Amino acid sequence: MSIKEITSNTNKQLKWIKKLQAQSKERHLQSVYVVEGKKQVLELNIKNVHTLILDERADLKLFELYECEILILTQDLFKSVSLDKTPQGYMAIAKMKLNQFESQKLNENGLYLVLESIQDPGNMGTMIRVCDAVKADGIIYNKESVDIYHPKVVKSTVGSLDRVKCYQVDDLTQAIHKLQSNKIRVYGAYLDESSSHFSNHYDQGTAFVIGNEGNGISDQVIKCVDERVTIPILGGAESLNAAVAASVLLYEAVRQRIQ
Amino acid sequence: MSIKEITSNTNKQLKWIKKLQAQSKERHLQSVYVVEGKKQVLELNIKNVHTLILDERADLKLFELYECEILILTQDLFKSVSLDKTPQGYMAIAKMKLNQFESQKLNENGLYLVLESIQDPGNMGTMIRVCDAVKADGIIYNKESVDIYHPKVVKSTVGSLDRVKCYQVDDLTQAIHKLQSNKIRVYGAYLDESSSHFSNHYDQGTAFVIGNEGNGISDQVIKCVDERVTIPILGGAESLNAAVAASVLLYEAVRQRIQ
Repeated sequence: MSIKEITSNTNKQLKWIKKLQAQSKERHLQSVYVVEGKKQVLELNIKNVHTLILDERADLKLFELYECEILILTQDLFKSVSLDKTPQGYMAIAKMKLNQFESQKLNENGLYLVLESIQDPGNMGTMIRVCDAVKADGIIYNKESVDIYHPKVVKSTVGSLDRVKCYQVDDLTQAIHKLQSNKIRVYGAYLDESSSHFSNHYDQGTAFVIGNEGNGISDQVIKCVDERVTIPILGGAESLNAAVAASVLLYEAVRQRIQ
Repeated sequence: MSIKEITSNTNKQLKWIKKLQAQSKERHLQSVYVVEGKKQVLELNIKNVHTLILDERADLKLFELYECEILILTQDLFKSVSLDKTPQGYMAIAKMKLNQFESQKLNENGLYLVLESIQDPGNMGTMIRVCDAVKADGIIYNKESVDIYHPKVVKSTVGSLDRVKCYQVDDLTQAIHKLQSNKIRVYGAYLDESSSHFSNHYDQGTAFVIGNEGNGISDQVIKCVDERVTIPILGGAESLNAAVAASVLLYEAVRQRIQ
């Protein structure tokens, strides 16, 4: 490992970190993103760590096996790049894993989540985390969704981003056709006129489509699904949070599969 | 209704609104809180609306039956008090519903959620919304939890706050004893050494305890529960988001009850 101390707030690498935090375009041009927090940094596969950024109090011994560059910042400088209220002093620039959905071999008995235009970073991160928890085979999302490497998404995945296969696709309807031609049944989460969630069988290959927080699934996409499915709402709420809907659907599939 | 136009940014009522948004203490002293958004304001029970705050473009006809004071603000002034990026021009000061758990008659076949020291406003709001969706009989939470009238909680409930019975209690263990003495079985969501969630029967009176996001349920509280329950995690994630855990538990109870 090569260690470099940074003590000036005009340092170019500090500006680079801030740019990566702020700009999705910049992250994707360079194929890297920012991870913050001791646990989150340590959970990254060593091979995927591009640069480590530590504050002067951080425990260097933890990184003896890392071959990347390590930047050591004064506490004040670390605080100036941190997005956390109480920075732990551990940050990494990590390499993106770019997964091509078109060329991907699919699991006919798999469990997939398809996301259309999800806007809220917290929802996106929570759905990546739950896909990790249920060992889903992948998340397919369109370009209109929030960038999965947005710092707030990364934070709310709590380390799951490095473990879940995420596929950004140009055309969700094509992706759905690919799932279907691999015998995976595609269910669209819908609010009315749908089959009740609890009467469906999810023990074979299953994909759930979750739509945008405000508008749901678009007409174009809903036309392609095999079945519309509704999570029963017994009380006064008009709808469920997108991440809650995804979690209830995925865990019902888990229940049917492990029982 | 009495209408008052506000055009000066030094107006006392504007300061009052900002204070209510910022300070939990102030909200509880006056027993009111701030609701923002057209739909959210219209979903409030008319009787619970203390003051309406509208921008000059808002549709006054919607509020013909309201007897409270209506403040009409210029667009710029409304923007200055709004917490939304793109304000819709509708806000209300709403009266809190104060529910006493100690004197409350419980439903022996009911469904309850018990929250210990939940910190994230988004999680709290999402749990209130899902309790509305499953028609839960109540949420019991301790004083160390985030204020349910925090603007971010109110926003993420999407109108459910006015429909779900929420009880703040001094002592969660006493509340759990009260549930138990009403034949309600209390399950603590726990990560290890627990019975698997899917093998339990939730068709009788059931309460789920969800702990703090970082630390889980405290030793003191976990000692009181009838059973620890774990939601199976098949993949690499170490835990689930608190609101996701609550939702998966509550919807499994719903599944068992409606099937």
